[in-house]
Amino acid sequence: MPTRDPMRERKREETPVVSLLTDFGTTDVYVGVMKAVILGLCPQAQIVDLSHEVGPGDIQAAGFRLDAAWAYCPAGTVHVVVVDPGVGTERRVLAVEAGGHRFIAPDNGVLTQVLAAAKRYRAFSVVEREFFMPEVSGTFHGRDIMAPVAARLAGGLPIHAVGPEVTEGIVTATVSRPAVAPGGLEVHVVHVDRFGNLITDLTERELHDWQSESGGRRFIVEVGGRTIEGIRTAYGEAASGELLSVLGSTGRLEVAVNMGSAAEELGVGRGATLVLKGRT
Amino acid sequence: MPTRDPMRERKREETPVVSLLTDFGTTDVYVGVMKAVILGLCPQAQIVDLSHEVGPGDIQAAGFRLDAAWAYCPAGTVHVVVVDPGVGTERRVLAVEAGGHRFIAPDNGVLTQVLAAAKRYRAFSVVEREFFMPEVSGTFHGRDIMAPVAARLAGGLPIHAVGPEVTEGIVTATVSRPAVAPGGLEVHVVHVDRFGNLITDLTERELHDWQSESGGRRFIVEVGGRTIEGIRTAYGEAASGELLSVLGSTGRLEVAVNMGSAAEELGVGRGATLVLKGRT
Amino acid sequence: MPTRDPMRERKREETPVVSLLTDFGTTDVYVGVMKAVILGLCPQAQIVDLSHEVGPGDIQAAGFRLDAAWAYCPAGTVHVVVVDPGVGTERRVLAVEAGGHRFIAPDNGVLTQVLAAAKRYRAFSVVEREFFMPEVSGTFHGRDIMAPVAARLAGGLPIHAVGPEVTEGIVTATVSRPAVAPGGLEVHVVHVDRFGNLITDLTERELHDWQSESGGRRFIVEVGGRTIEGIRTAYGEAASGELLSVLGSTGRLEVAVNMGSAAEELGVGRGATLVLKGRT
Repeated sequence: MPTRDPMRERKREETPVVSLLTDFGTTDVYVGVMKAVILGLCPQAQIVDLSHEVGPGDIQAAGFRLDAAWAYCPAGTVHVVVVDPGVGTERRVLAVEAGGHRFIAPDNGVLTQVLAAAKRYRAFSVVEREFFMPEVSGTFHGRDIMAPVAARLAGGLPIHAVGPEVTEGIVTATVSRPAVAPGGLEVHVVHVDRFGNLITDLTERELHDWQSESGGRRFIVEVGGRTIEGIRTAYGEAASGELLSVLGSTGRLEVAVNMGSAAEELGVGRGATLVLKGRT
Repeated sequence: MPTRDPMRERKREETPVVSLLTDFGTTDVYVGVMKAVILGLCPQAQIVDLSHEVGPGDIQAAGFRLDAAWAYCPAGTVHVVVVDPGVGTERRVLAVEAGGHRFIAPDNGVLTQVLAAAKRYRAFSVVEREFFMPEVSGTFHGRDIMAPVAARLAGGLPIHAVGPEVTEGIVTATVSRPAVAPGGLEVHVVHVDRFGNLITDLTERELHDWQSESGGRRFIVEVGGRTIEGIRTAYGEAASGELLSVLGSTGRLEVAVNMGSAAEELGVGRGATLVLKGRT
Repeated sequence: MPTRDPMRERKREETPVVSLLTDFGTTDVYVGVMKAVILGLCPQAQIVDLSHEVGPGDIQAAGFRLDAAWAYCPAGTVHVVVVDPGVGTERRVLAVEAGGHRFIAPDNGVLTQVLAAAKRYRAFSVVEREFFMPEVSGTFHGRDIMAPVAARLAGGLPIHAVGPEVTEGIVTATVSRPAVAPGGLEVHVVHVDRFGNLITDLTERELHDWQSESGGRRFIVEVGGRTIEGIRTAYGEAASGELLSVLGSTGRLEVAVNMGSAAEELGVGRGATLVLKGRT
């Protein structure tokens, strides 16, 4: 990165970033209303939509997306995650400081990857009603609690003001992990993207570790009855329509079809298992 | 709400909000072009998408969404509604000041709920061409008239500058209303949201009035051949997959399925009738 | 346009516009991550989504959209086009200055219409890694190269700093053009919009030229076995459900159905041929 420009730093202070990740879709006004609330309290915020197309209540899918995106946001960003099937029940709303970012989310496991990656973090239970909307519905805490609290954090409110610190009992979600099996290394599809690319739970480091342990040898990937040899560095290294594996932009092993959809080609979706085997 | 911060107020002045509600979808560049025009004339505007997924020409659906969203925007927001099947014909474009907000919309009934809710309002016919784009097409007044006029209002143009005041003849749309019938209170589904929640035309106040008139008794909701007892305060108060009724975030009676879709479960959509009956 | 306001001009300088046009969809976080990167480097940018619903790798569709939208953005806008099936291969990334705007795109033909319309332009090959993200993946140059370079241009970096000037060999895409045939003027559907309007490759000027050459006579449009007489200036000039032709908002001949979808009514899509014939 080039040297920092003090003018730029000043402006960043003046334009805090709030990211939104929800399962609201864009047909309804739910997202727009959250933005309106945020801008009413923090007019200078820059709001970034990470995605609103998380499946209804799909905590795993939200966790994957947050994990893939948050670190690309500027330091200090307030990330608001509203995938909240338990809205209005006793589930807590958390405000977390981790990795120089802030996170507002229901305590339902959606922050599992963020917390696991953080060397240390502080979490607070969002209970101070003075920072909420004057009336709080039982069905839309994104609007009535999370958006206004996020706007206030973005505007300078110290995170510890939102409520008592939480030191235990944070809900965690099951996060898919590769597993060494007799037949090879089993990895799993955790996301199918718009292009039909199959993104797995195997990180680059884990791949390298497995390769080292198994003698640095070359490998094949078995998926959907097909076999892929080796690994490319770009989709376009394969012929058009050819199946390939690649270390994708999230730093994970990905199976793709150049100029096509691996999901369609293989008839394979989220949760599917791929097997990596050494190749002599 | 906490006490107001003068710094924040100053910044709000400098970052006027413009909301957009259209039937343009996001496949085409129509929305992007409107934003480009707005930012060219009011570079400091914060633009909020309420929704662009209103069905083509669906004035009722746009009216419902605007009604559910506008009041959450900061005072002074300019709301631009482009659901405009009559574009290029003799239908007027209106600029309305109501409730401390401004609205730019075709005179086709889309503002019916806003005007009905306002204690008083002023409406103007948008005719002053000096505020339009230099060339005005016959098919995209959102870009050529509404966006530039909205940007100028956001930038400080007094609303009366856009054209003559309109004191009569504003088009109104039919707005669905509950009806007392021999068998009970008939309410209607006015919107099905992304989660399959059935949002009705019955407001909390109307529900309470009906309960008072009918002796404060408990009630059941009949819908799609099924019966729902009582009312919950959160989706998660029902068992997973269970049908429930709730006062939703728009302040209206809503029928939902916890962790599921009421629309799918009941095979019921917009326009469907639900009946509330007293329960002894 | 009204006279320019020096205050407004000042603010425009402070709020550069970056437009985004991609084939990423909005289900994934790819677009959000690009925005995050841009705001990290240029916190004051106003980001405008032109569309993210370009079909995967559909360079023609992206070129059409960019052509229809870019000139409506404020002077100086940086347009980022990420429809990039060749990502990670030897294809260049271009930075182009044309018409007072800047464009960042893969060298795959997506800028063909922009370059053809520009009286003159300067193009540069984006190679200076100091302006990239510290690590560059082989599969997401939108995030790792195009977003950071766009942010730096928006923040004031001179375009010639990104790499050497390119004076030849820029890839061009085939752009659909009308053709004079024995039976009349053949024009082609280049885009079907959300409303089912069929937008053709015939511009208003070309229509007028053809009319002049053929004696200024009136004409009919033959499409999908149907005949449309003359040309309207607004959809609503036709009866509800009636087929019509109109000079649409992109300045091209368009076939539409008032209050309906021409694409559905005619069973016709992109690539279809319409024939204009003189009418005596």
